[in-house]
Amino acid sequence: MTDRSDTIARLRALLGDRLSTGASVREMHGRDEAYSAPALPEAVAFPETTAEVSEIVRICAASDCPVVPFGVGTSLEGHVIPLRGGISIDLGRMSRILEVHEADLDVTVEPGVTRKALNEALRASGLMFTVDPGADATLGGMAATRASGTNAVRYGTMRETVLGLEVVLADGTVIETGTRAKKSSAGYDLTHLFVGSEGTLGIITRLTLRLHGIPEQISAATAAFPSVAAAVDTVILAIQMGIPLARVELLDAVQMRGMAAYNPDLGLAEAPHLFLEFHGSPAGVEEQVAQFREIAEAQGAADFAWASRPEDRSRLWDARHNAYYAGKALRPGADSMVTDVCVPISALAECIAAAQEAADEAGLLAPLVGHVGDGNFHMLILIEPDNSEELARAKDLAHRINRLALSFGGTVTGEHGIGSGKMRYMEEEHGPAWAVMGTIKRALDPKGILNPGKLVQQN
Amino acid sequence: MTDRSDTIARLRALLGDRLSTGASVREMHGRDEAYSAPALPEAVAFPETTAEVSEIVRICAASDCPVVPFGVGTSLEGHVIPLRGGISIDLGRMSRILEVHEADLDVTVEPGVTRKALNEALRASGLMFTVDPGADATLGGMAATRASGTNAVRYGTMRETVLGLEVVLADGTVIETGTRAKKSSAGYDLTHLFVGSEGTLGIITRLTLRLHGIPEQISAATAAFPSVAAAVDTVILAIQMGIPLARVELLDAVQMRGMAAYNPDLGLAEAPHLFLEFHGSPAGVEEQVAQFREIAEAQGAADFAWASRPEDRSRLWDARHNAYYAGKALRPGADSMVTDVCVPISALAECIAAAQEAADEAGLLAPLVGHVGDGNFHMLILIEPDNSEELARAKDLAHRINRLALSFGGTVTGEHGIGSGKMRYMEEEHGPAWAVMGTIKRALDPKGILNPGKLVQQN
Repeated sequence: MTDRSDTIARLRALLGDRLSTGASVREMHGRDEAYSAPALPEAVAFPETTAEVSEIVRICAASDCPVVPFGVGTSLEGHVIPLRGGISIDLGRMSRILEVHEADLDVTVEPGVTRKALNEALRASGLMFTVDPGADATLGGMAATRASGTNAVRYGTMRETVLGLEVVLADGTVIETGTRAKKSSAGYDLTHLFVGSEGTLGIITRLTLRLHGIPEQISAATAAFPSVAAAVDTVILAIQMGIPLARVELLDAVQMRGMAAYNPDLGLAEAPHLFLEFHGSPAGVEEQVAQFREIAEAQGAADFAWASRPEDRSRLWDARHNAYYAGKALRPGADSMVTDVCVPISALAECIAAAQEAADEAGLLAPLVGHVGDGNFHMLILIEPDNSEELARAKDLAHRINRLALSFGGTVTGEHGIGSGKMRYMEEEHGPAWAVMGTIKRALDPKGILNPGKLVQQN
Repeated sequence: MTDRSDTIARLRALLGDRLSTGASVREMHGRDEAYSAPALPEAVAFPETTAEVSEIVRICAASDCPVVPFGVGTSLEGHVIPLRGGISIDLGRMSRILEVHEADLDVTVEPGVTRKALNEALRASGLMFTVDPGADATLGGMAATRASGTNAVRYGTMRETVLGLEVVLADGTVIETGTRAKKSSAGYDLTHLFVGSEGTLGIITRLTLRLHGIPEQISAATAAFPSVAAAVDTVILAIQMGIPLARVELLDAVQMRGMAAYNPDLGLAEAPHLFLEFHGSPAGVEEQVAQFREIAEAQGAADFAWASRPEDRSRLWDARHNAYYAGKALRPGADSMVTDVCVPISALAECIAAAQEAADEAGLLAPLVGHVGDGNFHMLILIEPDNSEELARAKDLAHRINRLALSFGGTVTGEHGIGSGKMRYMEEEHGPAWAVMGTIKRALDPKGILNPGKLVQQN
């Protein structure tokens, strides 16, 4: 292993006790929330300013030492794991909300602010930040993985939400991408190049994010459907009609069985469900609901349950956000593996049916939740711990689902990212465009120190 | 001058009479619609397939011969002008609409399809393509300049509209960026890298574009305001309230004087105006209109005129689209120079006031139109032909307006692009990020054959 003692000494001179080589801190920065093997950084840096991040990167670049940015570790594809050692840069102390521009509907933040902290701070302004991946991730991490979640069907993903970034490059140079103007034709779109780059092209140290007004009226609902296809067709028709669904989440019958086990008072049947939210003026929401209901009932929907009071909506969405735990409740003590494919919505019902059939064939329980308005769905494959045969079957099932998505013209990751786990699909998904990504990586990070082993082949 | 006879002979062998070296064809491909000095290509190629574009680029790459893509030449920043000679690749014969996916609300087209041709073809499907830069540009050209226009406030620019591209790279390799899935976290966002790259990174040979349903109800209106600031404040408040304005265009008093001269039966006062459009259900539009009207009247708006019948709306928007000619009607026979700055909407009124003051100080007539929901406005500086002193004053005024926008945190180009004319501002607007664009250009086009002299410094 490379001797990093000189690098670490220089970093300690810069950061003092904000550089940690303690075992527990390193362990905390050596794993994420997914089924990935951990790997330890040699030290963890806790910078407080962009200048410090820049200096850390300069010091590391001088000795070809890897740097891996870390938010709160909610990644599901191993992004934050320092596969080749080096320095984990924990951005948690850069958590200031710098400027709220109410007239422009945007906000400038440091990367360690979490989405819930931002929304808490915005509440009095009547504005909201809309990207909701479930976990209370940092905004820097969400930009780096191009996160999305339940609201993306209406308000977009991090792709549509990030207006501009400050980024520290591989040699320590600090750049700003974009201006605060809402649009621009002034050159290459570096903002979008860094959004989703998973720490492999630079370290995000500041973000300007688009906000939305909190709607006057919010209504949530659940509805049961005779089949996944009926639920998907309902959503397709609703979107074609221009109903501006704010959230539309699919849960299959297996997942609903888990929901019933995990939330005994939820009282919903074990049939495919849509969880919905409508935003607008009172009259607008009423109209959306009426139109949606007509479409849904024509597809056989039943058991509509409505929630307009904030506490009822919270209960419903808490249940949806706990879908992961509810799914796991189907097999207490099980480990899990999460898929994340996304396909054209016209192919969604067919892709889901094929994925469910594959799970049945594999003899594995795999409850399904989906951001159905975007064509994105997750299957939570449940695995007995320490059962290597079952783990192999689970991996094979995940592989089949990924290849199914590609066969339908989709992507192996709608919102979780590539990390190290999904690099094997990149050539198949992107063809020769995959090599272009490598060319860009080598041009911007010639030494390969930025989160090496992730997203892109370096040599 | 380099001898291209061998390159041209090889291209002729490939294309036969679809390679032209005739003077009039070369002249047509040596200019655009702007105030840019023309330059001739040595030949013009008219490919009909991606494979032919790829082969043309391979042949040109072998002799370091520049290639410049050409749509219909509606660029306003000299993008299509072959500054260093070489081959103009006219994509006008690649004008097929390949696939309409109604359930997915997207369409795949060749780059030579124009926006009006696409909307004509879509009409029966109930879908519409929403980016509207005024000119009937090709969709490939619109993607290459990241065009936008009057609908962007609601539906986005080409940035939000392009879902995926097929691109021929500098060595002739053909790549596809993106999938047909609505979102993805699978690697670097190459789609957005090529959108707005002005032919300097590759040649777009196919596009998948987002569509929207044609709204059930469309209402248009005009309203007069006591000042530009009152009009801008109205728009800020309307957007903050969440009114989904489909179009909101500002015309200042000078421009309205031109409108009156050019459209004698338009019957609108010489005061700052907003031209508006509302899309939605009948009840939804009625609600939007009522809410907007209340805000506008509180800001002193008067003379509301409504148009719900298609022919009345067309008359109104034809008048808006002819604003360029109306502006020129203020000074018959004048040449013109168009600015294109975009600033945060909170700074828009102040920036416009300063720009108007600068025009007055320069003693130049410069009517103004603005995509006010995006913070983007154009001033049409009118110049006496062959008056070099006035031309110098006009250039100085445009320069002052560009620097004003930068001082307000904005961009020198909201939608027209950089071309060769605005490269001088890139360092000031982007700082060290400008060098990153150069690094990317050199990595993807090491020989510098793709539209050389545009957008980015090559050496």
